[in-house]
Amino acid sequence: MRTDNRSSGDLARLSVNQETVRQLPLPELVEGLVTLGVPGLGLWRGPVREYGVEAAAKLVRDAGLTVTTLCRGGFFTASDPDERAAALADNRAAVDEAAGLGTGTLVLVSGGLPAGDRDIACARERVADAVAELAPYAEERGVRLAIEPLHPMYASDRCVVSTLAQALDIAERFPARQVGVVVDTYHLWWDDRAAEGIARAGAGGRIASFQLADWVTPLPEGVLLGRGQLGDGCVDLRGFRELVDAAGYTGAVEVEIFNPALWARDGAEVLAETAARYRRHVL
Amino acid sequence: MRTDNRSSGDLARLSVNQETVRQLPLPELVEGLVTLGVPGLGLWRGPVREYGVEAAAKLVRDAGLTVTTLCRGGFFTASDPDERAAALADNRAAVDEAAGLGTGTLVLVSGGLPAGDRDIACARERVADAVAELAPYAEERGVRLAIEPLHPMYASDRCVVSTLAQALDIAERFPARQVGVVVDTYHLWWDDRAAEGIARAGAGGRIASFQLADWVTPLPEGVLLGRGQLGDGCVDLRGFRELVDAAGYTGAVEVEIFNPALWARDGAEVLAETAARYRRHVL
Repeated sequence: MRTDNRSSGDLARLSVNQETVRQLPLPELVEGLVTLGVPGLGLWRGPVREYGVEAAAKLVRDAGLTVTTLCRGGFFTASDPDERAAALADNRAAVDEAAGLGTGTLVLVSGGLPAGDRDIACARERVADAVAELAPYAEERGVRLAIEPLHPMYASDRCVVSTLAQALDIAERFPARQVGVVVDTYHLWWDDRAAEGIARAGAGGRIASFQLADWVTPLPEGVLLGRGQLGDGCVDLRGFRELVDAAGYTGAVEVEIFNPALWARDGAEVLAETAARYRRHVL
Repeated sequence: MRTDNRSSGDLARLSVNQETVRQLPLPELVEGLVTLGVPGLGLWRGPVREYGVEAAAKLVRDAGLTVTTLCRGGFFTASDPDERAAALADNRAAVDEAAGLGTGTLVLVSGGLPAGDRDIACARERVADAVAELAPYAEERGVRLAIEPLHPMYASDRCVVSTLAQALDIAERFPARQVGVVVDTYHLWWDDRAAEGIARAGAGGRIASFQLADWVTPLPEGVLLGRGQLGDGCVDLRGFRELVDAAGYTGAVEVEIFNPALWARDGAEVLAETAARYRRHVL
């Protein structure tokens, strides 16, 4: 099923994150992407480990696809020393998996506030400390850490890094070859400082990943699985793509949507729809 | 039931917003506050109009209480001219009601993006335009408009003004006697620029209201009714109170919590708990 994905024309930068079509087992996802001429995919640790890291790497490589990101490391805001050590060990494993998959980008979601903790500034510092411990290990294995700011609605339970400016404040303490940031439209669309942050990230060579999802309401309970298909919401997706382009980013444009309504449909149909929406709302 | 609320000691700045105990009819709310020695209350237009604006004003005045805010005006991001005119007319009515209640503060929630609209910067400008039309009318009636930044999770459907900096960027186009801002811990706690914004707001005499609620997860569907009782969440409430104090704010500290679990309980008990939590977590 190998095709020449290098010549896939207007989809040449498109990548689809595995979780967008989690109903598809990895071989079917790979086949679907090849059929459409989509050259990239983003992977998640859980399903990859289930399939086997080496087997997944071979499957993707044989199909001529590129793994644009591995999601995800992070969750290292624990103040308890044992929990912190465990988180760092798990992150080193994530780096190894990223290297095994041949991707240079490990996405980091920093983690929220420990129970009873009300000091978010301090938690952000613990993120920076953990990145300092992890970055050289990752660089030795050819993997760059990509700090992802998550929407402020996740600040307490998933990610104390909420804005691109905050992510850059941490990333810029390290060489750009070691630590970058993720620009994700779902998390940043509301922020009037996002454009300034993208320019700053681009100037420093820090845009490690550009991810797309649309914003739709009402948000579901827990607010995790409410991302919209491209074009279904209020995000100026093309405007964001133009901003990252203007900032000098030439990498993959990865669609990452968590939405049970998409998961309930035929996976190949969702992939085709995603490519069509990408053409219409992003290019 | 009149008591001397001016001498209520450590509760001298406390105000409880009506929606915190929406199970209480206005006379019971007033009685409960007087019993506890809480001198202030924040009112909502709906229940006040049901009770009658003049009757409500008399009830509150006779009890020696102060109406710290009226919630709310705003929702003027419509681009359709008729909708926009209707919103402005409704806001003038809200100003009249505020004046009738004897409060100097009308809280404005700006409104979200109209259906199909992806230009949030433009919507924010329409907010500023509406404030320009409304501010002189309000000033003539002794009412100051208070722009409330709402958490970014409401940016698309309720309030395109998401940060204190954005609220101040609009407010500062007008005299401070006409337009101020609301500092609400629930909406701002995650923002590392909140302290800077509070200092800026205080320096300009712009803090029109200081409101408290705690942040708890998981967020409920629609994310409207998930605010936590003081002390139940991760917000450094005392830290925020110290920031507004340091910025020169000497006004009311208003507790505004929307939470069905509080509404299901005995209202007087919730009021007493709120006063106790205020003593423990805010003072």
